[in-house]
Amino acid sequence: MPQRVPVVENILSANDRLALENRARLDAAGVFAINIMASPGAGKTSLIEHTVRGLTGKLRLGMINGDIATSLDADRARAAGAAAVQINTGGDCHLDAVMVQSALAQLDLSALDLLIVENVGNLVCPASFQLGTHKSVLVASIPEGDDKPYKYPGMYRGVDAVVINKIDLLPYVPFRMDYFKQGIAALNPGVTQFELSCRTGEGLPAWLAWLEAQVREYRQAR
Amino acid sequence: MPQRVPVVENILSANDRLALENRARLDAAGVFAINIMASPGAGKTSLIEHTVRGLTGKLRLGMINGDIATSLDADRARAAGAAAVQINTGGDCHLDAVMVQSALAQLDLSALDLLIVENVGNLVCPASFQLGTHKSVLVASIPEGDDKPYKYPGMYRGVDAVVINKIDLLPYVPFRMDYFKQGIAALNPGVTQFELSCRTGEGLPAWLAWLEAQVREYRQAR
Repeated sequence: MPQRVPVVENILSANDRLALENRARLDAAGVFAINIMASPGAGKTSLIEHTVRGLTGKLRLGMINGDIATSLDADRARAAGAAAVQINTGGDCHLDAVMVQSALAQLDLSALDLLIVENVGNLVCPASFQLGTHKSVLVASIPEGDDKPYKYPGMYRGVDAVVINKIDLLPYVPFRMDYFKQGIAALNPGVTQFELSCRTGEGLPAWLAWLEAQVREYRQAR
Repeated sequence: MPQRVPVVENILSANDRLALENRARLDAAGVFAINIMASPGAGKTSLIEHTVRGLTGKLRLGMINGDIATSLDADRARAAGAAAVQINTGGDCHLDAVMVQSALAQLDLSALDLLIVENVGNLVCPASFQLGTHKSVLVASIPEGDDKPYKYPGMYRGVDAVVINKIDLLPYVPFRMDYFKQGIAALNPGVTQFELSCRTGEGLPAWLAWLEAQVREYRQAR
C-alpha cells in the first residue's frame, strides 16, 4: 500500500513538530524533562516514587503519567509528593506529543525544576514518538530476561540511560548480566547504566545523583 | 480528524476479513490454533518450549513466532522440536492477520494438530488484531505486579485463558494474588486460569492437559 506512506510521514512529522513546541515550552520555563519508558511491570512507577521521595526538598518535581485506563500511577506519584497529571490514552499504546502538550497546559511549569513523563508500559511503540523531553530513560528489569536488548532493539537504541531494576531477584532467576550488557553495548555503546532495586533501595543513590546532575548541567547550559 | 475514521475502519475490517480466511484455512486442515500474548519477558517462549516438550508424541505441533527483529524465539521452538516459522515484524508492535497468512503458507498444515502463534511482547496492541486463531491466551507473570489487569484491561478482557507464570518468585516480590484475581474477574469473569512456573515445572501439567483437551474438543466438534 505505497499510497499510505505519505500520510504516515505527515502524522510523524506533525508529532515531531509538536514535540519541538513542547521542548520550547519547557525550555522557556527552565524545566528539565525526562521520558521514562519500560515494559509493563518493570518498575517505572516504583522508580518514580523513589525519585520523588529522594529529590523532594532538592528539586521541585512534576509528573505526567501515561496510562491506558486508570489513574493508579498519578495517584502513587501524588502520594509521593509530586504535582501529577494523568493522561489516559484511551487504549493507545504510547504517549505522543499532543497528549504531552495538553498535560503541560495543566501544570504550573514555573513551579517546577524537573518533569518526569511516565510513558505507557510498552517496549515497542513509545520509542517512535518524540515528546519534547530532554532525555529518555529505559527501565529494564531482571525477571524480564537477559535477551530483551536483542528482541527490542528500537527501544534500547534510542535512550540516554538504562536503569536495570529488580537486581534483588538476581539469585532467583536465570539472568546473564554479561549477555544483557553486550546487547546494550551493541545497540547503544557507552549508554549510562544503573543497576538498582526499588525494593531494597540498593543502587538508588547513584540514579538520584545522576538525575540531579542532569538538571544542574541543563541549568548551567542555559 | 474525522475524515480519517473511515480509513481506520477499512484497515481493521481488512484485517478481520483476513483473520477469517486464516481461520478457514486452519479449519480446512483441522488444525487448532492459539494466540499467545504477553508483556516482554513474561515467559511466552519458555511456556511454548515446555508445551512443545510436554505434548510431543501426543500432538503434532507447529509454531509461528512473532518478533520485532530476531529469530531467537523460532530457534528455541525448533530446538524444542516444533515446526517453526519466524515472522519479523520489522518494528511493528503486534502480529496481524496478513503476517499470519504468509506464515501459514510456509507450514505444512496437513502435518499439524496444534499451531501455537507467539505474538510480539506487548500488553496493548496485540489485543486489537484478530489473527484467525481459535483461542487467545495471556501469559502474566508474578514480577510484573498485581495491578496489571487494572492497567491493561483490553488485554485481560479479550482472552480465553490466563497463565500466571513465575509463581516460584512469589516469596521474593510483593504480589497480592487476591487483588490480581479480582481485577481479572471484573474484566473476564470465569476465565480459565493457570498458576505455574516454567522454571520449576510446578503447575505445567494442568496447562498441558487443558491444551490437549482443547484440541480434542475441537476435533469432536468438527
